[in-house]
Amino acid sequence: MKIIPFGTSSGRPTLNRHVSSLAVVGEGEWWLFDCGEAAQIQLMRAGLSAHKLAGIFITHLHGDHFNGLAGLLSTMSLDQRQRPLTLVGPPGIGEYLNLLKRLRTIHISYPLELREFSGRDFREIAEQKVFESTHHEVVARPLDHRIFTLGYRLTERPKPGRFDLERAQALGIPAGPLYSKLQAGEDVTLPDGRVIASSEVVGPPRPGRSLAYCLDTRPCANGVSLAREVDCLVHEATFTDEHAAESDQYGHSTASQAAAIASQAGAKLLLITHFSSRYPDYRPLLAEARRHFPETRAAEDLLELAL
Amino acid sequence: MKIIPFGTSSGRPTLNRHVSSLAVVGEGEWWLFDCGEAAQIQLMRAGLSAHKLAGIFITHLHGDHFNGLAGLLSTMSLDQRQRPLTLVGPPGIGEYLNLLKRLRTIHISYPLELREFSGRDFREIAEQKVFESTHHEVVARPLDHRIFTLGYRLTERPKPGRFDLERAQALGIPAGPLYSKLQAGEDVTLPDGRVIASSEVVGPPRPGRSLAYCLDTRPCANGVSLAREVDCLVHEATFTDEHAAESDQYGHSTASQAAAIASQAGAKLLLITHFSSRYPDYRPLLAEARRHFPETRAAEDLLELAL
Repeated sequence: MKIIPFGTSSGRPTLNRHVSSLAVVGEGEWWLFDCGEAAQIQLMRAGLSAHKLAGIFITHLHGDHFNGLAGLLSTMSLDQRQRPLTLVGPPGIGEYLNLLKRLRTIHISYPLELREFSGRDFREIAEQKVFESTHHEVVARPLDHRIFTLGYRLTERPKPGRFDLERAQALGIPAGPLYSKLQAGEDVTLPDGRVIASSEVVGPPRPGRSLAYCLDTRPCANGVSLAREVDCLVHEATFTDEHAAESDQYGHSTASQAAAIASQAGAKLLLITHFSSRYPDYRPLLAEARRHFPETRAAEDLLELAL
Repeated sequence: MKIIPFGTSSGRPTLNRHVSSLAVVGEGEWWLFDCGEAAQIQLMRAGLSAHKLAGIFITHLHGDHFNGLAGLLSTMSLDQRQRPLTLVGPPGIGEYLNLLKRLRTIHISYPLELREFSGRDFREIAEQKVFESTHHEVVARPLDHRIFTLGYRLTERPKPGRFDLERAQALGIPAGPLYSKLQAGEDVTLPDGRVIASSEVVGPPRPGRSLAYCLDTRPCANGVSLAREVDCLVHEATFTDEHAAESDQYGHSTASQAAAIASQAGAKLLLITHFSSRYPDYRPLLAEARRHFPETRAAEDLLELAL
C-alpha cells in the first residue's frame, strides 16, 4: 500500500502545493481522500489510472477539499468509465451533484453510489462503515471543524497466516485439497487417521495495513479513535503552536496537536499536511510535531510514501 | 494588450493542456474569459495579480469552462480582495453560487456584481453590453452550442489622436491650458486673435484594440458579428474537418470553420484553441485553419501573445 498526496496546502493553492487531496493505492484499486481543485491533473502526474479508482471520500464541503470533484467525475465519463464508483461525503453533496447535473456542468455515465451522511446518522452511530471491497473497508466518524466534517479510517482485512510447507511435508500431509482446508483454518484427518490442526501448519493471521485521514479538525477524541494503532495517521497541521488561538478559532490543529493525537492513538507513523500558505517552508511544522512524536513526516505533493 | 491562455484543451485536461480559460491583460487591469479548473494556479504561474482582475466572463456552464470559478472566487477572499469584481455568465450561475455559499463551499468577502443572462434577454436584445470600465467595454451575444452559451467581444475605447508638439510650437501656441483644450478636441483662440482648430495639432482618434472570444460554438452568424474586424479572434477549433459530423453533433467547430469565421469577419488574427485531447499534436489543426486564414496561431497554455 502506498500514499500519494495530490495536494498539501490549506485554503488555497501555492505554486508548490495544490489543495487537499490524497491517494491511497492498494493492489488493483485505489482511493481518494478529499478532491481539491486539480486532483484530476495530479492523478495523471502520479501515473494512476482513474479506471482503478474505487472510492472517493470527502471530509467536508469547503472548496479546498472539494472543488476538484466535478471535473474528475466528468472526465471519468469522457474516459468511458464502466466500473461503479463509491462517493462518500457530508450532507449537501447530493444536492450539489443534482444541481450540477441539471446545469449540465457534470455528466456521469457510470454507476455512482453516493453515500451522503446526515448529522443525525452520527448522533445515532458513533462509527459507520462506508465502504467495503474484497480486501478493504472504510469507516467514518465526525470530526470537530467549523462545518460538519468526516474523518476516515481505511483498513486492509487481515490476511490468512502463512502456510508452513516444510512443516506440512515433514508431517507427511499429502499435497492437494488438504492443504487448502488447512490454509482455510479447518482441521483435517489424514488417510492414516491422524488429525492435524490448522494451527500446526498455518501461522497466525497477519493484520492488514491501516490508515486514518483526519482533516480538517481541531484535536478531538474521534480523531484518536480513527487513528488507534494505524500504520499511518494523515492529520492536518495547519499552524504551528504560535498560532494556536487562530487554529482553534478556525477549527484546525497545530503540528504539536496532530502529534499528540498520533501519540495518544499509538499510530506508527504521522503524516502531517494541509499547511497554511503562511509557511513557505514546512520545517518549523515538522520540527514541532517531531518534538512530541518523532515518527512524523511532512507531506509533499506527489511524494510517494510506502506503508 | 496581451493574451495569455490558461488552458487550451477541450473537455478534460491533459498533461500539457489545462481546460478552457484565457486572460486578456490591459493596463492596470485584466479579464478572464472562462474559468476552467486550475485557472487560479495558472494565473500564479503567469505572474498575474488576482487583485487586478476586473471581470470574469463565463461562456457556458459545462464544467471544463467553469469548474475553476469556485476556487478562484474564494481564494480572492483569502487574499483580502477589496476591489469589486464583475462576473458575467449564463442562466444558472447565480443559483450555483447561492448553493455553494449555503454549503460553505465558497466564501466571497468583496463586492461581486453578478450579471446573469436569461435566454429571454437575448430574444429581445441581439447584442448586450455586459461590462464597462474607464478604457474598455465588453459586449455579449449568444452562440450556437449544445447548451446556452455566450460569446464576448472586448473593445478598448478609441484613444485621442496624438498631439503634434512640433506643429503646436511652430504655430506659436503658448504651452499650458490651450494644449489641453486642443488635445480635448476644442478649437482655441490665441492671445494674438488667431483661431486654431484642434485638428491642426491633434491627429485622428486612434482605434482601440479589440478581441472576440467564441467558444464553445458551431460556426454561427453571431460569431462573425462579434469578430467583425477585431485584432484577435479567439475561436474554438475542437476538431479537424475529418471529424466535421461529430463536431456538429456536439456543437463545436472544426479548424477550417473557425478560419472561415475569421475570414468573413475580417479579423486580423485568429487564435485557435479548445483542442480535443485526441490531437496530441496541434499542427494538423493549425495547418487546416491556415489553408483558409493564413494569420492563424494555435494557443498553448501560458504562451503570451501581444496584440
